[in-house]
Amino acid sequence: MKYQFANRMSNVKASAIREILKATADPQMISFAGGNPSAEAFPVKEIEKISADILSHEPISVLQYGITEGDQEFIQAATKFLNRHEQILTDKDQMLVTSGSQQIMEFAAKTLCNEGDVVVCENPSFLGALNAFKSLGAVLRGVEYKDGQLDLDALEKALQMEPKPKFIYLIPNFQNPTGMTMSLEVRKQILALAKKYEVLILEDNPYGDLRFEGEAIPSIKSLDQDGLVIYAASLSKIIAPGMRVACAVAPREIIQKFVVAKQASDVHSNLWAQKVMARYLCNYDMDAHIESIRKIYKNKCYLMLEEMKKHFHPSVQYTKPTGGMFIWVTLPEHVDMLTFVKKALEKNVAVVPGNAFLDDDTKECHSFRMNYSTPTDDKIREGVKILGQLTYEMCEVSS
Amino acid sequence: MKYQFANRMSNVKASAIREILKATADPQMISFAGGNPSAEAFPVKEIEKISADILSHEPISVLQYGITEGDQEFIQAATKFLNRHEQILTDKDQMLVTSGSQQIMEFAAKTLCNEGDVVVCENPSFLGALNAFKSLGAVLRGVEYKDGQLDLDALEKALQMEPKPKFIYLIPNFQNPTGMTMSLEVRKQILALAKKYEVLILEDNPYGDLRFEGEAIPSIKSLDQDGLVIYAASLSKIIAPGMRVACAVAPREIIQKFVVAKQASDVHSNLWAQKVMARYLCNYDMDAHIESIRKIYKNKCYLMLEEMKKHFHPSVQYTKPTGGMFIWVTLPEHVDMLTFVKKALEKNVAVVPGNAFLDDDTKECHSFRMNYSTPTDDKIREGVKILGQLTYEMCEVSS
Repeated sequence: MKYQFANRMSNVKASAIREILKATADPQMISFAGGNPSAEAFPVKEIEKISADILSHEPISVLQYGITEGDQEFIQAATKFLNRHEQILTDKDQMLVTSGSQQIMEFAAKTLCNEGDVVVCENPSFLGALNAFKSLGAVLRGVEYKDGQLDLDALEKALQMEPKPKFIYLIPNFQNPTGMTMSLEVRKQILALAKKYEVLILEDNPYGDLRFEGEAIPSIKSLDQDGLVIYAASLSKIIAPGMRVACAVAPREIIQKFVVAKQASDVHSNLWAQKVMARYLCNYDMDAHIESIRKIYKNKCYLMLEEMKKHFHPSVQYTKPTGGMFIWVTLPEHVDMLTFVKKALEKNVAVVPGNAFLDDDTKECHSFRMNYSTPTDDKIREGVKILGQLTYEMCEVSS
Repeated sequence: MKYQFANRMSNVKASAIREILKATADPQMISFAGGNPSAEAFPVKEIEKISADILSHEPISVLQYGITEGDQEFIQAATKFLNRHEQILTDKDQMLVTSGSQQIMEFAAKTLCNEGDVVVCENPSFLGALNAFKSLGAVLRGVEYKDGQLDLDALEKALQMEPKPKFIYLIPNFQNPTGMTMSLEVRKQILALAKKYEVLILEDNPYGDLRFEGEAIPSIKSLDQDGLVIYAASLSKIIAPGMRVACAVAPREIIQKFVVAKQASDVHSNLWAQKVMARYLCNYDMDAHIESIRKIYKNKCYLMLEEMKKHFHPSVQYTKPTGGMFIWVTLPEHVDMLTFVKKALEKNVAVVPGNAFLDDDTKECHSFRMNYSTPTDDKIREGVKILGQLTYEMCEVSS
């Protein structure tokens, strides 16, 4: 039998990250390629205790079918949590519990985009989201950065072009892959552009709570008065990703469509995970827990940056994140980035080639992504030193 | 802001079942409308014990990100379980763990169907699957039953029509909604037709283990030598649905596409559920557990049939399932089914109107679906009596 597959799937390649992560299964490999939260940060004992309590006293509540919208107890706890510092969920909004925030990306494209419709994204942006959009036939229109912020003129041009985009996908805090954060002024201007051109915003905020420097900047959702923003919140980076719990917050009419999509997709999300997270959010001090994660990430990030400063060739540039999990490294133009990444892999250090994060991965790209949340401190020291030697080899030789 | 949604979603209506299930939230209501397994059948104590063990000894294995294909321990356990009586997974096949078998329906349509492509289905068939296909732009082509089996001439005609269908969706065992089972001969002939016309089969088998009468009939997957069958196995009906664990088994090339779809959809399924189910499958006597569920369902089914025989007007026809969870009831042609269902709701008994399960729900339909796995014995007696009175009222009055 010769199989024929849908056209939409041919747009989605087995991801570069995936292939590299396979190589990182080798225990010899020092991986800066992943995006895993640090396992030290998981509230293991608390989850164990809550889970035992639920399974002993109300097992049927997590074993029987649930409703698509999500467990009521979780929705209440998550609403309170999301609204604790700013208003994410207003009385015009509704929440849908999803199986990780990846599913929110899929539902956005599934419910809003016909085949060939355009999604505007930052260039570079999160590969998983871009693949979700492409897997539903959406076409990406990337907007570049200029002087460390999204180029608003380029964004306005992208919004004026035909066909008119369906939504703008943004990660305003500690972006994946760049680690960069949008200023309040840029957020306000993007929202104003979205209103002017009547284009929705999908605001993805998995890392917002992982700030270890400076003051929190209001989310675009909290600034929106016109029902323009779909907000994706995730508990993967602040509780545990293997549980697969996230939530979408958006105007009721949009969430109702998402609910129909979720019914057709997986009926509802795992109930044990929802219940355990609900109790954790309610019964423990989340802000103290988040503070402890921030400390871990701050130390790891500063260590990596310090080692990079020590070992990297001065012609190599990189972002200095104030939160999140990633650093974006840019080689001088005369150095071939893919060759660099390949040579690093041969020396047992894995990073992700930057072109994987572009709207079109065949574009020229001199950057790669490094992650500091997963490796141990020793591995950070060891791996950065090896990469540093390679920057000297390649930047000197090629110049 | 005026929202515009994708065309594909306008094909998927908020389901009739969903609306009826809302009515059943009323504790006064006797619901034969659901499709929940009996909570008595959940192995609660065993899940509690296994979960405690995992969370105390290897919590990180269920809290950190996992791989898209599924937890290796679960895949091994599920392979052994599925292959215990017949060969489902051959050496040409691969398994993908999914978040319930609903997700397998979605991935089949997503990876195999372009917009407008045709899926052949039984008429009636499982609403959730039909919605998944439609939500990805597929068009349904229903094949009717004749003398208690799928009409093979009609199936062959459906396979000959243009455009050529992408796959045939079948529930051979204790079908939802009819409760009917395909004979071995019909299975063989369908497989031969699939081979002749080079059309894949999506074999959905959530109820196969719930047989309480007669001998098991080989799955179509086990008869296939040509890589024609995608097999959907679910643990929702034999362990617990709230955990959302199922698995797709198909030729490697197809599963590889499913993996890409799953990566874009939800990255991977909840790991706690996979690990708990793996241990349950390995460490407990599944066949004994299944035998205990069969007893519960046998008693409930026979009770419902007995009460129906006692109370229903003789002009009402219904299937006599040998397993599964559903009975399909057909009113005489002169009785309006939707009026019947509405009047039943007014008398606090909920059943699902049969047109909801058709390829086109505006077609004339005189049938409705009754579920016996969820209600208590008392509710079965009480509810069937009320429905019985209504059959007398409506069948007599109208004749």
